[in-house]
Amino acid sequence: MGANNKAILIIIDGLGDLTPNSPLQTAKKKNLDRLAKEGITGMLSTIKRGIVPGSDTSHLSILGYEPEKYYCGRGPLEALGVGVQMKEGDVAFRANFATAQGNNITDRRAGRIDTLISKKLESSLNFDIEDVQCIFKTSVEHRGVLVLRGSGLSANVSETDSYKTGYSPESKPLDESKEAKKTARIINAFTKIAREHLEAHEENRKQEKSGKPKANAILLRGAGNYKKTQSFMERFGIAAACVAGGALYRGIAKYIGMTLVTVDGATGTKDTNLHEKAKEAVLSLRSNDLIFLHIKACDSFGHDGDPKGKTKMIERIDAELIPLLAKSGANLIITGDHSTPCARRGHSGHEVPILIWGNERQDEVTQFDEQSCMHGGLGHIEGKDLIPIILNLIGKGKKYGS
Amino acid sequence: MGANNKAILIIIDGLGDLTPNSPLQTAKKKNLDRLAKEGITGMLSTIKRGIVPGSDTSHLSILGYEPEKYYCGRGPLEALGVGVQMKEGDVAFRANFATAQGNNITDRRAGRIDTLISKKLESSLNFDIEDVQCIFKTSVEHRGVLVLRGSGLSANVSETDSYKTGYSPESKPLDESKEAKKTARIINAFTKIAREHLEAHEENRKQEKSGKPKANAILLRGAGNYKKTQSFMERFGIAAACVAGGALYRGIAKYIGMTLVTVDGATGTKDTNLHEKAKEAVLSLRSNDLIFLHIKACDSFGHDGDPKGKTKMIERIDAELIPLLAKSGANLIITGDHSTPCARRGHSGHEVPILIWGNERQDEVTQFDEQSCMHGGLGHIEGKDLIPIILNLIGKGKKYGS
Repeated sequence: MGANNKAILIIIDGLGDLTPNSPLQTAKKKNLDRLAKEGITGMLSTIKRGIVPGSDTSHLSILGYEPEKYYCGRGPLEALGVGVQMKEGDVAFRANFATAQGNNITDRRAGRIDTLISKKLESSLNFDIEDVQCIFKTSVEHRGVLVLRGSGLSANVSETDSYKTGYSPESKPLDESKEAKKTARIINAFTKIAREHLEAHEENRKQEKSGKPKANAILLRGAGNYKKTQSFMERFGIAAACVAGGALYRGIAKYIGMTLVTVDGATGTKDTNLHEKAKEAVLSLRSNDLIFLHIKACDSFGHDGDPKGKTKMIERIDAELIPLLAKSGANLIITGDHSTPCARRGHSGHEVPILIWGNERQDEVTQFDEQSCMHGGLGHIEGKDLIPIILNLIGKGKKYGS
Repeated sequence: MGANNKAILIIIDGLGDLTPNSPLQTAKKKNLDRLAKEGITGMLSTIKRGIVPGSDTSHLSILGYEPEKYYCGRGPLEALGVGVQMKEGDVAFRANFATAQGNNITDRRAGRIDTLISKKLESSLNFDIEDVQCIFKTSVEHRGVLVLRGSGLSANVSETDSYKTGYSPESKPLDESKEAKKTARIINAFTKIAREHLEAHEENRKQEKSGKPKANAILLRGAGNYKKTQSFMERFGIAAACVAGGALYRGIAKYIGMTLVTVDGATGTKDTNLHEKAKEAVLSLRSNDLIFLHIKACDSFGHDGDPKGKTKMIERIDAELIPLLAKSGANLIITGDHSTPCARRGHSGHEVPILIWGNERQDEVTQFDEQSCMHGGLGHIEGKDLIPIILNLIGKGKKYGS
């Protein structure tokens, strides 16, 4: 092995599913199975047994940042991920472009509006209210972030995205503080002005003409108050980089001070360029001890209730990603951030299979799937165990005691 | 499945035993084995690995109430179970009818006096001492509870039940507080007055005539100070009901705000009506998300050192209880609160096998016993893991993060 003091942590988002006939059990995946045969396997609870993880908390936990202590809400993480330079005290939200008729939300995602169109709408959503700067940035399709920057703001306000249609979005303070009251007032003003600017925007006249839903409203959720945190290097003493397309995952990496690798065609969607991601991950091993490589699409197929899509995505990962990574000689850790069973169309608290290949022992397991790995030699581990295991793999674990 | 968003938690008290030839290994139990084959298995430490659990602490732990925080002594739980309306500050004890000659205890259980006779003795044990109300209530055979209600009481007093014969019962304060001194004084007065009332009681003259031991003394243990606690619904957001015969288990359910289901012939003893318990459990699924179903007798056979009795009881559970429960379509979680090895005639800290059937994955295990389940796909879990696992099973786990 050429890089056996390095590691690549491959997080296949939403990987786990229910058995029998889970996508992992069904997929043809000779490369993953070879690694399972040569390596060691087990089951991972990214938070704790049975707990249903969010994608943000599970990644923090896997990457060695206990979410009880380090989780600051999804908004700031997404904002970091789309490239906003965050400042302490900023309050950030995950934002959706939506369609409204009058005050009523009729489509929470504005027909999953095209990324290029939402980009054109962005500048009309950056303005000041009172002493607060509203910073809006789009990411992919209907998704974006809103960052409020100003004095005396609080994240303790209600979301304007109610995960339904047929209502008029409004934020309320969730405590009696003047900060929460001010923030709710700013959000409601932003919502109103955004509605006017978007309704009047040329792109929405085009949408209307072509019979498509207008992106004429903004919905907010995942409020969080940004705080700086200890970097990965400070915390664990190794250099780490992130290869990911999705904004949240890039944001988490940024939050903990990992280097962000830019990859052509790493979209965080189902058409992501796996070969390019693998290539860049391997290249990044030169100047890093650990690469955190994230692949989103299996989770999306789970949310869509599409086991065939999930199975094919696993087969693509097996064919397009794994061989290149294995060839690098780095230790490979392959797992998910949580299960997203297709039958549930959402996250679940079932454990995720995990496979470690490299400076670990071998077990008797020869296939990488839920039913095989539950009998694996790693046993049942938790997210918090992963970084110590990785540090040990690459010989960078600090001795505790003497 | 008709009720796959519901669950029944079946606690077979004292289920675990030593191998080889444990009652679970010996019993003919085709229904349990079928569920093991179709479901997933593992081993459960209800408190922590190796710790010898009490029945009270183990149930609190299994039901999601960490005993370090929520255990208030056995007395209050038993008192709740026999129907005493407890008030904050009450000090309660588990009580035994005993036989005394003069001041000397000669039989700790008054020959396991009949339930109907002890019931008749009850009213002579309710009186006031100083400003303290003594509330005595019998349960089954020689068992009962004493609740002290009044100002300035403490549970920090020694027990009068010394688990032996040939001594004169006396309570002492275990600290220097005036509350402990007062409570010990009240107990000693109660013990003396109870001895006089019982000795003079008509039922004891009948006992004497028929050559049976008199129930002419009361022994106390399991002192505890009652405190209200957060209800199961508040804590976990689901409606739960309890099907149990034994006072302690009903008391624990009452303590955490579960609905108590009344079942004809659910006695908490070896002749309990399993079929009726199963029927009522299934009926109770209509208005509840979770049923906690408790069966006592395996533990009693363990304490008696009777492996044949324990084996037969498992066979009865397999034949009379399991098929009805499985037919309901609810998720089934089958385990024990601790091991009660017949060879030890008492609780032990050996893990208990656990079987989950329903919205879980399958493992390779095909039999429900100690030696098979130690290789099961759930691995080795703790009591605290169980409620999160159950919430995830029935799709009621709250996502942690987003």
